[in-house]
Amino acid sequence: MSFMTFQETDLEELVNATRFLAAKGKVATYIPELARGNPEILAVAAVDAAGTLVSAGDRDVRFTMQSISKVVSLSLALMELGEEEVFRKVGMDPTADPFNSVMRLEMIRPHVPQNPLINAGAIVIDSMLPYADPEKAFCAVRDMARRLAGNPRMRENQAVYLSEKRTGDRNRSLAYFLKSVGTIKADVETILDIYFRQCSLEVTVSDLATLVATLSMDGRNPRTGEEVLPPSVCRIVRALMATCGLYDGSGAFAVRVGLPAKSGVGGGIVAAVPGVMGIGVCGPALDQQGNSIAGIALLERLSGRYGLRVL
Amino acid sequence: MSFMTFQETDLEELVNATRFLAAKGKVATYIPELARGNPEILAVAAVDAAGTLVSAGDRDVRFTMQSISKVVSLSLALMELGEEEVFRKVGMDPTADPFNSVMRLEMIRPHVPQNPLINAGAIVIDSMLPYADPEKAFCAVRDMARRLAGNPRMRENQAVYLSEKRTGDRNRSLAYFLKSVGTIKADVETILDIYFRQCSLEVTVSDLATLVATLSMDGRNPRTGEEVLPPSVCRIVRALMATCGLYDGSGAFAVRVGLPAKSGVGGGIVAAVPGVMGIGVCGPALDQQGNSIAGIALLERLSGRYGLRVL
Amino acid sequence: MSFMTFQETDLEELVNATRFLAAKGKVATYIPELARGNPEILAVAAVDAAGTLVSAGDRDVRFTMQSISKVVSLSLALMELGEEEVFRKVGMDPTADPFNSVMRLEMIRPHVPQNPLINAGAIVIDSMLPYADPEKAFCAVRDMARRLAGNPRMRENQAVYLSEKRTGDRNRSLAYFLKSVGTIKADVETILDIYFRQCSLEVTVSDLATLVATLSMDGRNPRTGEEVLPPSVCRIVRALMATCGLYDGSGAFAVRVGLPAKSGVGGGIVAAVPGVMGIGVCGPALDQQGNSIAGIALLERLSGRYGLRVL
Amino acid sequence: MSFMTFQETDLEELVNATRFLAAKGKVATYIPELARGNPEILAVAAVDAAGTLVSAGDRDVRFTMQSISKVVSLSLALMELGEEEVFRKVGMDPTADPFNSVMRLEMIRPHVPQNPLINAGAIVIDSMLPYADPEKAFCAVRDMARRLAGNPRMRENQAVYLSEKRTGDRNRSLAYFLKSVGTIKADVETILDIYFRQCSLEVTVSDLATLVATLSMDGRNPRTGEEVLPPSVCRIVRALMATCGLYDGSGAFAVRVGLPAKSGVGGGIVAAVPGVMGIGVCGPALDQQGNSIAGIALLERLSGRYGLRVL
Repeated sequence: MSFMTFQETDLEELVNATRFLAAKGKVATYIPELARGNPEILAVAAVDAAGTLVSAGDRDVRFTMQSISKVVSLSLALMELGEEEVFRKVGMDPTADPFNSVMRLEMIRPHVPQNPLINAGAIVIDSMLPYADPEKAFCAVRDMARRLAGNPRMRENQAVYLSEKRTGDRNRSLAYFLKSVGTIKADVETILDIYFRQCSLEVTVSDLATLVATLSMDGRNPRTGEEVLPPSVCRIVRALMATCGLYDGSGAFAVRVGLPAKSGVGGGIVAAVPGVMGIGVCGPALDQQGNSIAGIALLERLSGRYGLRVL
Repeated sequence: MSFMTFQETDLEELVNATRFLAAKGKVATYIPELARGNPEILAVAAVDAAGTLVSAGDRDVRFTMQSISKVVSLSLALMELGEEEVFRKVGMDPTADPFNSVMRLEMIRPHVPQNPLINAGAIVIDSMLPYADPEKAFCAVRDMARRLAGNPRMRENQAVYLSEKRTGDRNRSLAYFLKSVGTIKADVETILDIYFRQCSLEVTVSDLATLVATLSMDGRNPRTGEEVLPPSVCRIVRALMATCGLYDGSGAFAVRVGLPAKSGVGGGIVAAVPGVMGIGVCGPALDQQGNSIAGIALLERLSGRYGLRVL
Repeated sequence: MSFMTFQETDLEELVNATRFLAAKGKVATYIPELARGNPEILAVAAVDAAGTLVSAGDRDVRFTMQSISKVVSLSLALMELGEEEVFRKVGMDPTADPFNSVMRLEMIRPHVPQNPLINAGAIVIDSMLPYADPEKAFCAVRDMARRLAGNPRMRENQAVYLSEKRTGDRNRSLAYFLKSVGTIKADVETILDIYFRQCSLEVTVSDLATLVATLSMDGRNPRTGEEVLPPSVCRIVRALMATCGLYDGSGAFAVRVGLPAKSGVGGGIVAAVPGVMGIGVCGPALDQQGNSIAGIALLERLSGRYGLRVL
Repeated sequence: MSFMTFQETDLEELVNATRFLAAKGKVATYIPELARGNPEILAVAAVDAAGTLVSAGDRDVRFTMQSISKVVSLSLALMELGEEEVFRKVGMDPTADPFNSVMRLEMIRPHVPQNPLINAGAIVIDSMLPYADPEKAFCAVRDMARRLAGNPRMRENQAVYLSEKRTGDRNRSLAYFLKSVGTIKADVETILDIYFRQCSLEVTVSDLATLVATLSMDGRNPRTGEEVLPPSVCRIVRALMATCGLYDGSGAFAVRVGLPAKSGVGGGIVAAVPGVMGIGVCGPALDQQGNSIAGIALLERLSGRYGLRVL
């Protein structure tokens, strides 16, 4: 696919036609700092195999990656530890449980999170990162995010990080459960600190589009040319995005959009068109599953209009 | 993709190299008649957009579709009733519960099966089919299967049907639960009869390959040329296959093979390469999730060698 | 305790003071024939160690035992098979799940009902009864009920039995689940037929009071003088009544009334004062847990006024 | 009952005849400090209505109350806040879930622990105690325990307290879950500190026997003569002990022993014979439900030999 038929004026038009949907959703409130997000924001960017970037809407707005960062830490863990090691402590199963469910952890033996894209799984991934101290572990995740996005200045939003750290009691419950059954060994607050920091990494839709374009292009960042990840890691990450990327909304997203994707409660979504391009959207008003309501609609329209779906 | 690089000699070689894996699995025993299956069988067939058929291994062996028939009845229901009507009584959520779990049905309100590709969902789909009597409903499913597979002589295996009818107590438990909460209205044994009959439809890997090629080609059977289904139905079915097609093995299958697929305990699997081809395999020895152990391995090798994966 | 301070005029007064509570409950509707019950009925009877019977309120009203019959079939099974045999297929655990929950059956291995006083447990008990055919099994249960109650004319209510048989789909779901995991071996409809018939046994509060007085007196019917059960069986039955007799209302009942008891959706409750007396009440208007709302209140007042509680 | 037939020589004989059963159990290991307990210890004490104390076996051994302290904090909360206030945040339902299950908390709405005698419930109780600071709250619990047991020198075992504080991750998981859903408002570690401290209160079997004799005698300590609790509080506590006191072993205990009781993983059990006496036992070797294996057997024999059961 060339970008000749995928022009910014088309994107702008799509954004304008979709923006009204935000009124049907709600900005996440469980992290107080996120509750300040502007629900009317809508932005999109796409990066193709040649590294061409197009964007539209509120393209300069910065927001936090939140759960999209799970894709980053998973990629890092797979590269550093290998598939076998990673999947001894976390499953590959899709799930219709909410992203922060404790229940299944307890019900299933061994007590292993179902997949690395739910909170419990991402916490386990962070607990496995092979670095000398938590600062180094976080920096490794941030560095991976920077290289995937081709943005060496990406950094945390301190206010969101601190807000989440203060209020992240469900994540503490998950992590202490995992500790109590021996699935994680390290200090819980230390692990959660890495997790809360990576969730607060601040991006634009262009960052997201480049990040997921790199995953789409089997690990080669199409804007910087850097080989960030091996193809085998990208295949695993894309497959898990396709089956587990939007929590209990994953099935409906596959039907509507037909692309591997990952959402965050900050309103961002990344979607991969393998071999072709990466797309990032942002719309902070969320649906009941915690996914950007206008963001999904925008991706559905893009996917439909340009025949992007792979499913 | 043309089939010039996808020749029967290659397929034969792959089948021979993979067959030994069957020893690690077990033939399904919960349906007595299935327990007679030969665990060493392995067969594959593929049909491309032009309708060319290639096959290898035990290509003439006949086996029952079992859960692969859920794809057929879902397609029929979507065509006859429309997406909105169908998804009022069944969800689109992937699940890591076994295919015959009652638990989640009870836990979640409304008591709606998570998706149409688990047993409870398929039973609900059968209960919705808009036909005057169960005989007509079954014939409509069979006819849809025949047209998708381009095989007007496809018929039930009476012994398997009767065996399943005699022993299908877990399915009865599911169906009576659904009846008790009002999700299905019709007589339970009548609905189950349709379900058991469609599961016993007998096919070869060539039938499966054609059937799923039709879904891959947006509804046009590439061997008969018939427009069997509208593209919108095929997109829904393929998306659900990608997220829910192999029960709690769906995530691992997406990682290993990267294609929408659906398995049956008879040992069959159908895999769609959208726009390109359909692949059918059969190997009755199953893994712990109830999926063909050698069949998955064969699809993984095919997908890897020929770059078929879409995820 | 003598009955000198426990006179019918007192009982009448209590009944009259409590009757208004029925307005806060609802007659069971899931069995259509039960829905015809008069919600304003309230009756009580007590039988002491000497066999003296006192009663008050709508004492002549006949109603069906429903789940109170589980006490009868459990007693029979314990006497015929022994404690060890019975508790290999059913647990002794209290539960806060509703009486007809499938979920826990599936979650816990081995798939054994938690106790014999929930529906799944009572169905398993019926499946164990060592009789040549279902007619004989039912007659043995009915005969046990007659001897416990000292009423040789007790019989089924055909309309309720047939109504329950027609609509008992949740019980079918439970029974087929138990069959599918091998916990019950016999034909499901045959077992359920015994179960539905015993539930429909028709009684008055005097029957109930005598029945539970026999359990209170360690198996000796204080009105007929017959030794119906050994003391060891009565101890087991009373203990299970105390912990599991009112489903998820068992804890609150223990707090309010302090006596071993068993309720039925027909509105009846039996309460044992071990060594002292048996009490039967009936009030068809039920609370949210399916227990007689005015019946519990009446027992609470009786227990409080006369110092009957044992907990 | 007088103690004329309940002499220390009889108790000694029972202890000696029962001690061998300890070999079938295991000392709790999840709290490292408890793992040092001597599994062969067995001791019993009883206090009657007149305040007479008899004891036998390892009567001088000191051990920690652990979950038996839940009875103390519940009594305190009921006295200070009243029944209505307490049961707005915690249920009265028996449960067959293990004492530290998170699952049910999540499944049921409102997210309220099922009863105050499981860990989650006891943590909620501690969070409700109306004191200015955690030190005062703990001292109030300790003071209640001292008055119930008539032992003004009762104090914490620092080593056990610190061991539990270090390793109590499952309790942290429960508490953070309760915080995340708003059931508890206060700081989690502060609440848990009270909880871990009360669990570490050190007692002998004589302390336990007096403590539960006070509950048996409707709140009047039969050794000190002090009116510690109102009768209404004692009735509630005894009823909950009968239905929920031994977790998923509550039903079997009711069958075998027939008395309201509460166990702790330190090996202690208290059993109430309402109006008659209180019994304390200690045997650190536990069965699979976490209850003293020889302790239960000793209570069963005592209850059987002296006709103590109330159920």
